[in-house]
Amino acid sequence: MTNEVLDYLRTHREEHLQQLTEYLKIESISSDSTHKDDVCRAAEWTAKALKEAGMEHVQVMETAKHPVVYGDWLHAEGAPTVLLYGHYDVQPVDPVHLWTTPPFEPTIRDGKIYARGASDDKGQVFMQIKVIEAIMKTHGKLPVNVKFIYEGEEEIGSPSLDPFVEAHQELLSADLLLVSDTTMIGKGEPSICYGLRGLCGLQIDVKGPNSDVHSGLYGGAIQNPLHALAEILASLHNQDGQITVNGFYDKVRPLTDEEITTYEALSDDEALKAQLGLKELFGEKGFSTKARLWGRPTLELNGVWGGYQGEGIKTVIPSEAHAKITCRLVPDQDPKEIAELLKQHILAHTPKGVTVEITLFDQARPFLTPYDHPAIQTAGRALEKAYGKSPVYTRMGGSVPVVETFNTLLNLPAVLMGFGLENENFHAPNEHFHLENFDKGMDALTYFFYELTNKK
Amino acid sequence: MTNEVLDYLRTHREEHLQQLTEYLKIESISSDSTHKDDVCRAAEWTAKALKEAGMEHVQVMETAKHPVVYGDWLHAEGAPTVLLYGHYDVQPVDPVHLWTTPPFEPTIRDGKIYARGASDDKGQVFMQIKVIEAIMKTHGKLPVNVKFIYEGEEEIGSPSLDPFVEAHQELLSADLLLVSDTTMIGKGEPSICYGLRGLCGLQIDVKGPNSDVHSGLYGGAIQNPLHALAEILASLHNQDGQITVNGFYDKVRPLTDEEITTYEALSDDEALKAQLGLKELFGEKGFSTKARLWGRPTLELNGVWGGYQGEGIKTVIPSEAHAKITCRLVPDQDPKEIAELLKQHILAHTPKGVTVEITLFDQARPFLTPYDHPAIQTAGRALEKAYGKSPVYTRMGGSVPVVETFNTLLNLPAVLMGFGLENENFHAPNEHFHLENFDKGMDALTYFFYELTNKK
Repeated sequence: MTNEVLDYLRTHREEHLQQLTEYLKIESISSDSTHKDDVCRAAEWTAKALKEAGMEHVQVMETAKHPVVYGDWLHAEGAPTVLLYGHYDVQPVDPVHLWTTPPFEPTIRDGKIYARGASDDKGQVFMQIKVIEAIMKTHGKLPVNVKFIYEGEEEIGSPSLDPFVEAHQELLSADLLLVSDTTMIGKGEPSICYGLRGLCGLQIDVKGPNSDVHSGLYGGAIQNPLHALAEILASLHNQDGQITVNGFYDKVRPLTDEEITTYEALSDDEALKAQLGLKELFGEKGFSTKARLWGRPTLELNGVWGGYQGEGIKTVIPSEAHAKITCRLVPDQDPKEIAELLKQHILAHTPKGVTVEITLFDQARPFLTPYDHPAIQTAGRALEKAYGKSPVYTRMGGSVPVVETFNTLLNLPAVLMGFGLENENFHAPNEHFHLENFDKGMDALTYFFYELTNKK
Repeated sequence: MTNEVLDYLRTHREEHLQQLTEYLKIESISSDSTHKDDVCRAAEWTAKALKEAGMEHVQVMETAKHPVVYGDWLHAEGAPTVLLYGHYDVQPVDPVHLWTTPPFEPTIRDGKIYARGASDDKGQVFMQIKVIEAIMKTHGKLPVNVKFIYEGEEEIGSPSLDPFVEAHQELLSADLLLVSDTTMIGKGEPSICYGLRGLCGLQIDVKGPNSDVHSGLYGGAIQNPLHALAEILASLHNQDGQITVNGFYDKVRPLTDEEITTYEALSDDEALKAQLGLKELFGEKGFSTKARLWGRPTLELNGVWGGYQGEGIKTVIPSEAHAKITCRLVPDQDPKEIAELLKQHILAHTPKGVTVEITLFDQARPFLTPYDHPAIQTAGRALEKAYGKSPVYTRMGGSVPVVETFNTLLNLPAVLMGFGLENENFHAPNEHFHLENFDKGMDALTYFFYELTNKK
């Protein structure tokens, strides 16, 4: 059964790449309200693709912000139901001048397709849909039942998804969740992810004088909001890379001895330095690189700004200074608790002469599942067939908030079978996706659906 | 003789305000290379005004960057020669949205004219020219000889002026320098400034990974350039508002007991707090507000930026982070030495995992002159006549680099008779100039020129 499907995918490869290009051209930046219509267009495109794949009950469902796209095919009697998840929204694209080709003009170079969303996550959403389409066109039916839920808010912390899932538990009920939004451990190294970090964060707005003022005429007599902010920010870490927020590590689940050994073995510091052009790495004292990335929490400044950013000198003391902070969390940290601890720390470390306002961002719980679950082992066999190599069981430093949501609300085991590579510049200029994994990934998904019912 | 001139100024007041409006409309932002042509237009406008005032040898003289405007009238045999200085360039205008009326659309409200450059310094340049014009139109000659030097680089540290003055010592030779680019101590309080702070500064560019990266996938394993920058910046001060750069205070000349007493008496903390909307002031421990502003050095962050500044979340670790720093210096600090100390401090405090590049800005030496000098006493009498009140002898927190240049290169005593008020928002949104000082200031300048030769 699978061979015909794989043949179909080979035959239609050019056509698929053209369709993917069309999809990637849509500027579906979810964090930027000026792109609201583009986000909607991407939802419509996704829905149309599901219909063309032969899916039923396809609908674009409104939420408080960006819509959810749903569709299903439920005629495989007695077979399990797989809920497929992905997101059609993308990250912002600045700084645009660092892109070799424009972020929304997809370009193929050296066997990779360059565009915002190529890897994270439109490319992978597209693969899920096209595999289902290939099976339908080849055999007229699927070996399993499927439901699709594609959201448009993943890059902003999925604020609408929890209420959506809660309100549609019947519609979304399934036997397992399949997520293609994670990375492989390396090129040619198929991986299944069994853990994700959670997320919480906030913005600090420091307010000083009611207007920008001249640093000659006022400098020395008032607190400079930029100094105050620098003091607050510097207080968040110590020199050993540890986070100094009181209670931050209290609920962190220690790594097992097996994890410590495995993660150390999987760490390739030289490769990472070469990839990022760094002379040295830096992180929490006492942990290997992969342990720092997968099993330890972080606190990162994502943006800091205030005062003059132009050419040359402007002798000003700015009225305001700002910072955006996010934390990556691990089991059993609670995002709400950590955000509150962080807030208390900032207020306690605010220097004299300024006031501080804090705005909390949306949050995601960390996720960890046992990797000997049968669904995960089935995915492992599918990957081995497609790549000719048994997969590595990994964790991921990023967050896919919805995984925890589905786990909690629908009690679904999650299979995180992703085809991105860590150096594919998600969230950065020149995001791209390796076409090798576009091809092998679709093969693996095909094997996976058939392996689930043992119809090969 | 003076009464006819004062009458002329009254009669032509409306015409002068219209001309000033025209002058202030020119967007002569010297730090911004996209405004290069506007800076030239302002130079041409200034030269034309000098010609219309009856000045001779008027010329726009090229420098490495923005031109110098020169003109003279040298027919007052036996009388002293006054070199008049000012600048026709202005500060940038961002954040533009905080201006009540656009920065380059001069508007009169409540007896004040609002525009970038209204007070600093086009308004005051205009007053010098119009007083000379009024005397010429009224009496056909001046009581003193005059030379004008108006530059277009004051707001960027006057990089071309030193070489220009050095190359034109003969042309610029005079008996005293008159500068109208300082402030009065308060509304209705005429002041003569006998000291200015100097300036040095630099930009820090922190470089981390060769591209912005995802904070989930890399967070924890590499140094974040924003963390590194925050650490460097926080290391520059202690909690008592003292600068912690090694050797920074070594050459600071202590304030005299008289200065300590006077500055303390002139400090009005409540007024300053009310003006700036602050609950508390903050500065170097052990000094009054005026002492901090006039007699003590500072180190201020003028701009800090890196990473995402848009709406919402972007979970990125930026490739770069930046800061602009300037120091205000007092006698006998040397700008070159201080910049070097600062550089050493930054390099010594750069955390692991990033590299730092430092670019030095242009510099200005601090200036201090004895206030019992005859030229200063003459200016004092002129101010007393115009304002009906004897002037206060003050220092200023800002820098007018050229004062030190003229002092050193031409050995000229400087009279700093300025008509700005400290709350007129130079370098900030809603810069304005009180028309009361536009009128009384021109009266004072008229008295001054006649007092210099005792022809009243």
